[in-house]
Amino acid sequence: MKKHNFSAGPCILPQEVFEKASEAVLDFNNSGLSILEISHRSEAFVSVIEEARSLILEILGLQNKGYTALFLHGGASTQFLMTAYNLLEKKAAYTNTGTWSTKAIKEAKLFGEVVEVASSKDKNFAYIPKNYSIPTDADYFHCTSNNTIYGTQMKSFPKTEVPLVCDMSSDFLSRSLDFSQFDLIYAGAQKNMGPAGVAVAIIKEDILGKVKRQIPSMMNYKVHIEKDSMFNTPPVFAIYTSLLNLQWLKNKGGIAGIEGKNIEKAALLYNEIDRNPLFIGYANKEDRSIMNPTFNLIEGTDKATFDKLWKEANINGLNGHRVLGGYRASMYNALPLKSVQVLVDVMQQFEKIS
Amino acid sequence: MKKHNFSAGPCILPQEVFEKASEAVLDFNNSGLSILEISHRSEAFVSVIEEARSLILEILGLQNKGYTALFLHGGASTQFLMTAYNLLEKKAAYTNTGTWSTKAIKEAKLFGEVVEVASSKDKNFAYIPKNYSIPTDADYFHCTSNNTIYGTQMKSFPKTEVPLVCDMSSDFLSRSLDFSQFDLIYAGAQKNMGPAGVAVAIIKEDILGKVKRQIPSMMNYKVHIEKDSMFNTPPVFAIYTSLLNLQWLKNKGGIAGIEGKNIEKAALLYNEIDRNPLFIGYANKEDRSIMNPTFNLIEGTDKATFDKLWKEANINGLNGHRVLGGYRASMYNALPLKSVQVLVDVMQQFEKIS
Repeated sequence: MKKHNFSAGPCILPQEVFEKASEAVLDFNNSGLSILEISHRSEAFVSVIEEARSLILEILGLQNKGYTALFLHGGASTQFLMTAYNLLEKKAAYTNTGTWSTKAIKEAKLFGEVVEVASSKDKNFAYIPKNYSIPTDADYFHCTSNNTIYGTQMKSFPKTEVPLVCDMSSDFLSRSLDFSQFDLIYAGAQKNMGPAGVAVAIIKEDILGKVKRQIPSMMNYKVHIEKDSMFNTPPVFAIYTSLLNLQWLKNKGGIAGIEGKNIEKAALLYNEIDRNPLFIGYANKEDRSIMNPTFNLIEGTDKATFDKLWKEANINGLNGHRVLGGYRASMYNALPLKSVQVLVDVMQQFEKIS
Repeated sequence: MKKHNFSAGPCILPQEVFEKASEAVLDFNNSGLSILEISHRSEAFVSVIEEARSLILEILGLQNKGYTALFLHGGASTQFLMTAYNLLEKKAAYTNTGTWSTKAIKEAKLFGEVVEVASSKDKNFAYIPKNYSIPTDADYFHCTSNNTIYGTQMKSFPKTEVPLVCDMSSDFLSRSLDFSQFDLIYAGAQKNMGPAGVAVAIIKEDILGKVKRQIPSMMNYKVHIEKDSMFNTPPVFAIYTSLLNLQWLKNKGGIAGIEGKNIEKAALLYNEIDRNPLFIGYANKEDRSIMNPTFNLIEGTDKATFDKLWKEANINGLNGHRVLGGYRASMYNALPLKSVQVLVDVMQQFEKIS
């Protein structure tokens, strides 16, 4: 029996993606070969990666606007480093909105000055800072659109003259935005794009080539662009499965088709968190994440009983991140509304018996 | 119908590995969850990566000898960079035995002086240089054990006082060696270890911590060691499939159990290359690779007919690398002797009709 999987990532993907990926491990498109044993230089795989690169730009509305999509090794953590390697000549501006921003800032500091233009550390990252100013002489401005651990999400992005770089790992492909406001978007795949083991970088090419340092090949966006995202052997299976997931999303009507369902799921859960006297939300209401609602039991409630109830209801992955504790219900694109309803039912059942 | 897959990598893995990996994409160990949607911090996955790290040391005979095994993002190409980042303070010694050595040298030069102590570039990498000396004040000596593209292989390794670093990507786990002579072994998985998308690094820990530069977290072996190879979300599926393959290898008797079969496969093909007047081997005989025999048709033979014959025989991946041309029959651990016999039969059939 399938679980209701609220895992923060790696996370649930559509069942049809699991089925097609499983089949391809045995026999990829009736080729007599597993997807795991085909050459990455074969026509079959080159067409997979090219379709994936093109489809992601199509879904974001960024075709023919000077952007390139790359599938890269190393997760978003390597992007913390690559953004600075490729863009930071003297000074960069960062907001600090949680664990991942903090890590991005740490890596960037190895390459130049980092101005922390805003931080929500004073309230343990429970809100999104607003009304800060970005130095116009910064090489770029970096922000984290959604903070998986704390459950906060930027609802809008600052207008700035400097290149806008966004770590969109945990809300990528979940909501409509004018993506052309960004000059570089990166995301680890293992939320709404695919399995762990690949990251995507969407780069406006004209921001590159402005730093003087020599950049190692694997860290150099230009090298990856010149080699059509195949400088070295790419993570074939993770890219193929991402393509299956992108095709599923396109068939659902793209981001516009999925966004309403994500809002509906979030409303269902947040309404219950706010209504149910035994629960309390973590993040400031106006900054709440549609993807990762974080909440806790009020003091004095019986945690063991609640934990028993949701586990019996076949729910998986509800524990909060170890740095925050409490609960986190990650509700990515592929999570059905029904799973959220099961969680809400459990919360109501818990209220009744408490 | 399954193909006879001579692909150079990604390459054939055992059929039972494909079957178990395929099953886990639908349901991992009857958990009700796909291997693609489980948290990397779950007990289930932590036990996968820990078993894989331990099993690889066991197979190499390196348990309790000061070594750690890491599963890392980025392929061997990132290891070209990481080895230098972590070990190159002033000067390193490299042999240049082909395309991959050349790339490793290029990346290392960004971090310090590189002394090319030997090269086979003068004969287009058709042999392995011998009898060179390694400066005793080098921070380390780097070599490539097997040159996938040219089909050469080091049969022994120089005795040296400096740390011995080896890119073993294309013959890792294929032959018995005293692995304790190496201080750092790295390999992209996509030959004898698993699918593309993960690399392994086997590190003697006491060689670390000797460079003064600050190393970005994702490039820092010490960071990965401290975090038990889980500094960031690892490539879960690639590691799980690697574990399945390591378990298969252990059940075959480990490296000792597979080595004889690899020698037998290589002998069968090289004997035919040498016997058949229509074919000529590329590499010097004493330096021939057991993994990647490279050969060509003699001048004046009908390439189109030979190509038609092997394709009709359901053979895949026999074309040589684009930098060398000709043919390359990669014969990794999982390739059955029967597949080599099919190729030899085709070569003999071609001789008869020519």
